[in-house]
Amino acid sequence: RYFHLCKLPGRVMGIRLLRFTSVVIIVLLLVAGALTALLPNIKDDKLPNLRREPKPQSQSALDSFTLIMQTYNRTDLLLKLLNHYQAIPNLHKVIVVWNNIGEKTPEEMWNSLGPHPVPVVFKVQSVNRMRNRLQNFPELETKAVLMMDDDTLVSAHDLAFAFSVWQQFPEHIVGFVPRKHISTPSGVYSYGSFELQNPGFGNGDQYSMVLIGAAFFHTGYLEDFQRQPEAVYALIDETQNCDDIAMNFLVAKHTGKPSGVFVKPVDIRNLEKDTNSGYSGMWHRAEHLLQRSYCVNKLVNIYDGMPLKYSNIMISQFGFPNYANHKNKM
Amino acid sequence: RYFHLCKLPGRVMGIRLLRFTSVVIIVLLLVAGALTALLPNIKDDKLPNLRREPKPQSQSALDSFTLIMQTYNRTDLLLKLLNHYQAIPNLHKVIVVWNNIGEKTPEEMWNSLGPHPVPVVFKVQSVNRMRNRLQNFPELETKAVLMMDDDTLVSAHDLAFAFSVWQQFPEHIVGFVPRKHISTPSGVYSYGSFELQNPGFGNGDQYSMVLIGAAFFHTGYLEDFQRQPEAVYALIDETQNCDDIAMNFLVAKHTGKPSGVFVKPVDIRNLEKDTNSGYSGMWHRAEHLLQRSYCVNKLVNIYDGMPLKYSNIMISQFGFPNYANHKNKM
Repeated sequence: RYFHLCKLPGRVMGIRLLRFTSVVIIVLLLVAGALTALLPNIKDDKLPNLRREPKPQSQSALDSFTLIMQTYNRTDLLLKLLNHYQAIPNLHKVIVVWNNIGEKTPEEMWNSLGPHPVPVVFKVQSVNRMRNRLQNFPELETKAVLMMDDDTLVSAHDLAFAFSVWQQFPEHIVGFVPRKHISTPSGVYSYGSFELQNPGFGNGDQYSMVLIGAAFFHTGYLEDFQRQPEAVYALIDETQNCDDIAMNFLVAKHTGKPSGVFVKPVDIRNLEKDTNSGYSGMWHRAEHLLQRSYCVNKLVNIYDGMPLKYSNIMISQFGFPNYANHKNKM
Repeated sequence: RYFHLCKLPGRVMGIRLLRFTSVVIIVLLLVAGALTALLPNIKDDKLPNLRREPKPQSQSALDSFTLIMQTYNRTDLLLKLLNHYQAIPNLHKVIVVWNNIGEKTPEEMWNSLGPHPVPVVFKVQSVNRMRNRLQNFPELETKAVLMMDDDTLVSAHDLAFAFSVWQQFPEHIVGFVPRKHISTPSGVYSYGSFELQNPGFGNGDQYSMVLIGAAFFHTGYLEDFQRQPEAVYALIDETQNCDDIAMNFLVAKHTGKPSGVFVKPVDIRNLEKDTNSGYSGMWHRAEHLLQRSYCVNKLVNIYDGMPLKYSNIMISQFGFPNYANHKNKM
């Protein structure tokens, strides 16, 4: 009997202690779990995770940008523009997306005319696709991309200023060509510019897209673009158009804000009339604008909603080119 | 001997279990403590804590602003401007800071000419001080303040647009009058506008202040202003000037960014020539600008450093007043 009684207190005490401490431990684990859920999501600018970090030794990669220029059938314009753009301040590297299938790139000639201020990489494509320029090129080391059409000349002043604006708005597409969509009573959207009716938010006009053919945006969005629904790629391939509208949808969805910030260019020119190739660019096709309205509606279907938002902010450079471009009657 | 052995296992087991679970509990508490430290600091726009929350029933107080107009010896202009400003969209209330010491306010006449779109409060002052307008008035219910000089007429379009811009940049002074400081080799600062040399950051000009005599800013900064070094109040009282420079110092220190965002006004007018009072405003004093340079240097002393930062962002309204004010040669 004594034997029983000896063991009992130990076991009982042990069991009670065990129960008590188990409860305490479980409570603490639940608290810890709750706290972990409250931790901020460690993400820098609410931007997509960059798989590629800039190399630590190239400090410049953080304060510079990569120019991506896709080219088709206008090599004379390409080379003229490369001479101009290769010297833009804060340019880190140029990536030429070579859509001239089967044709040799001008790399040899380029090298023979060196040295050049920055490296230029010719990316030979296997199929002539509009969305080739939206690949997540391994050569990208900078946080920013400057994307330019191969017939668009923007002054260095404009580009330097717009880059500084992008650095203040890194989650937006900061560029020189604003466009908008409007809604109609039937629910069908239409795409256009100033010629369309204002969306009706107060006076003045609004824009809901900034075209990527002359704009800065975060490199992370190229990575993000690789993860879109297949139907988006099919749409762009079907129309050979609308990759820029798709990018605006992507950015607007990601930020919940207007996708673009419009910087009013002082000097922007279209050089297509200067080409010897006789090729005049996709936007001359009769169906070009109708296609873009079509794309807006298709993308709304694909993304199950209209993510584009309106903005009426127009940014210019203070005191440039006129040193007092802000003076008034006061 | 058996007796001893009976008790022993219980005690030993109990002690070991106790030790083990104590260690586990301590570890969990440390983990919980670490997680708590990582929790985000719950603060809205990095703005000073607003003691005054807008009354829950006035939803409009969140999307509207309070006009604060200080007035001295220009009651005719005041009343003309009140007729204009009382109808601005999103205006919640007007606070008139009555610096005409010993003189009756026009409140009776104002009431006899009612009803009015918004309440107007006349705050009688005991001393004619420039910084009277920077009090933390208990009548303030909105997050935003619009501060206007009593001789400045800004169009409703400009104000409506600038308010929408402020809502996107709530920690900045968003207004229509940009100014800058420049540094000289001697280390002495000078105050001015476009007539001064550019600070030399790239091409174009820069501004480092936006004057509060025609600007929106967060109500919390008025509260913040009450907590400045005594020397700041002494400086403003001594010069009857520079309260706006002091506010820009305050905001720049608080944000670590340029204090202001400049919105280019379409229609801003100075009405002082229209007054019957013959009073022409402080800025006509011979020493006015020299005083302001003096203030910049004094404030750098008081704050032990120069917190003002430069910006060259100039914001205009897209498509207003010209529906295609963004068109270019493209």
